This record gives sequence, structure tokens and C-alpha cells, in this order.
Amino acid sequence: MRAGLALGLGIGLLLAWLLAARRRRRAVREVLFFPSRPCCTEELLAEAEGRDGRPAPCPCPLPRSDCSLSRLLRRLLAARRSLELCLFAFSSPELGRAVCVLHRRGVRVRVVTDSQYMALRGSQIGVLRLLGIQVRHNQDVAFMHHKFAIVDKKLLITGSLNWTMEAIHSNQENVVIMEDTEYVQPFLDEFERIWEEYNPSNYTFFSKEND
Amino acid sequence: MRAGLALGLGIGLLLAWLLAARRRRRAVREVLFFPSRPCCTEELLAEAEGRDGRPAPCPCPLPRSDCSLSRLLRRLLAARRSLELCLFAFSSPELGRAVCVLHRRGVRVRVVTDSQYMALRGSQIGVLRLLGIQVRHNQDVAFMHHKFAIVDKKLLITGSLNWTMEAIHSNQENVVIMEDTEYVQPFLDEFERIWEEYNPSNYTFFSKEND
Repeated sequence: MRAGLALGLGIGLLLAWLLAARRRRRAVREVLFFPSRPCCTEELLAEAEGRDGRPAPCPCPLPRSDCSLSRLLRRLLAARRSLELCLFAFSSPELGRAVCVLHRRGVRVRVVTDSQYMALRGSQIGVLRLLGIQVRHNQDVAFMHHKFAIVDKKLLITGSLNWTMEAIHSNQENVVIMEDTEYVQPFLDEFERIWEEYNPSNYTFFSKEND
Repeated sequence: MRAGLALGLGIGLLLAWLLAARRRRRAVREVLFFPSRPCCTEELLAEAEGRDGRPAPCPCPLPRSDCSLSRLLRRLLAARRSLELCLFAFSSPELGRAVCVLHRRGVRVRVVTDSQYMALRGSQIGVLRLLGIQVRHNQDVAFMHHKFAIVDKKLLITGSLNWTMEAIHSNQENVVIMEDTEYVQPFLDEFERIWEEYNPSNYTFFSKEND
């Protein structure tokens, strides 16, 4: 009886530990810091674009090793069903290409952005709209200052990083990537709330008082 | 033997579940969205400042209920040993008061900030320096764009929110609060790296080429 008890206890604890380890392994928790080390993302993007056959090797001299930008791109390119973007500023050509790839692949992309920044030179917002991607924006003087993305409703990418070349290649910035529902769900809810608030049917085209 | 095995297995699984539940309960995972609903934070701050006796009730008409700003303040005011701040812009008087309270209480406060924003009108950086709080800043044209705080080396507060009145009361912003070491440790390391990089002994007072 006592030997059985001890053996059972041991097996039970081992099973629970294995289950917990599996859960820990599965939940993505990653931190990226910027400025990103220089690295070539051309082959990564060309492969995702699926041009005819294997893409030609990029002739640029940048290293092929992973960097913060390539890791961010890989997380986005993993999307299969949906991508919600809530971005103050979006002018990075690499991130723009990744979003276009996803749209062409049939991923449902929705974008919320800031009205004062979306029209600046180099903004990717016009490119996305031309492709038919839905974009909504604020209408007041306060900033829509979020910088987050949600991949397939289960992976949250958020931080200080605006999706601009300056932020990626020059500034001190951070991005956290998380799968824990305690973080993902509130951001999903926030996205839907803002998406409805910025519904064009609510646009007034007048300055709003006391708003 | 078989009964003992089953009993032991059951007890083992129960113990493991209880341990896992305790760990889950203890790890803080919180999300705050802004703009913060208007709420009075005067009594919260006055109590933390520990002025003579019980602070007089604030006569302002704002509600006393919790809001994103008061929740952020409470997380900061819980610091007992150390506070690392890595902030692009810091001009909120309420958050400034909270940091001063902590410094006076003996908490070791260190601040990293952006050189172009720290001298702007309303910046709290000068106030903190006058009190003897150590502040370091970048020296190049790229932004030190982080917006994070680490309380007692174990609680990370990060997001899109600059610590300014506009961000808190007007913008669409987010803050995530987390205790998981997978997030806290990289940010602690990043803080120490930047703290050393911005050591005044490294200041050149000349424009740096190819940097």
C-alpha cells in the first residue's frame, strides 16, 4: 500500500510537471529590442510573396542572420486567417510588403490608424487602401497612439515601436509578443471598440465639441 | 498496491494543480487602456506623501472610483526598493509626484530619458534631478523611445503611453503590466545596457559620425 502510494504520487507529479512544461513551451513570450541589427529581409519577403520558383539570392551585402526586424516579420507572416493592426504610424516598406502578402493570401486584414500621420510621405496606408484593405482612422486632434497587431486572434504584438524606418533602424524601442489570453483578449476587445468608434458612418467632418 | 497507486496519483495531481493555480494567481497580468476616465488622484497621492495626519478631502468634483491613471499610480507607489524608468517623455504632474514620493521614501530611482524631450516645458526631469534622482539620456538624434518602468526588479510596466497629460487624458494608448520573468528580465537587462551606454563619462559633446 505505502509503496503504491509513493509510486502513484511520483507518477502524478511527473505527469503534472510534463503538462505544465508543455503549456509553458506552447505559450509564446518573446521580447524584441530595436534598433534592429542590420540584416537582409529580402529573401524572407520574396519567399513569402511566392514569386515564380525559388527567389533569386539577394545581392546586398547585409548579413542573413536573424534580427529584430526579421523576427517581427516572421511573426506577422505566420498569419493564416486574420490580422488586426492598430498603428499610429506605418511607413516601413518591409512591414508594408508583409501586410500586402497576407492580404493577397486571403488573410482578413483590418487597419486602424491616426489621421494626422497616415497622409505623411512614405506612409503605407495609401498602398494598403489601393489593394482593398479596410482602413479606419480617428477624427479628432488626440492621437490614435497604439502600436499593436493581433495575429489570428491569438498572438499579440505590442510595444513602443512605430512601424517606421526610423523606429526600426535608429531608435531605442521594444516589442513584446505574447499569447497569454489575459493580454490578447483585452487588446482584441479594444480593437473592436475602436473599429466601431471609427466607423465612417460616425464621421462628422466637423470639429466635435466636448468630445 | 493498486488502491495506493491510484490514491497517490490523485494526491500528486491535486498538489501539482494547487501549485500551478497558486503560481497563476500570483503572477500579475494587467492591461490598462487610455484615455483614462477622469478621476481624482489627489487623495491617493496625498496619502502616499504621508503629510501630517489624514489628508484633507479633495474638494474637486471628479469621481473617486478607480481609473487607468489611478491604477498605474498604485502599481508605482507599491515600490519598496527600486524603480527603473526608461521614458521618452515625462511631463505628467501626477506621475512626477509619485516618483518623488518613492525617492523620499528611500526607493532607489534611476531614470533614462530622451535628450530632445527632457528640456521641453512641463518636463518632470528637472524636478527629479533637483531632488537628487539620477537621470541619464541619449546623445544622438535618434529617439530613446521606450516607455517602461520596472518596480522592485519584478514588475514590468510598458506600452505605448508616454507619461504626459495629453497621452493620459486624450490619446488612445495602452499599458501592459506583467510579472512573468520572460518579460521582466530582458527589460531589466536592456535598462542596464542603456544605463551604461548613457553613462556621462561616455558623453562626447560632439556629433558622432557613423554611430
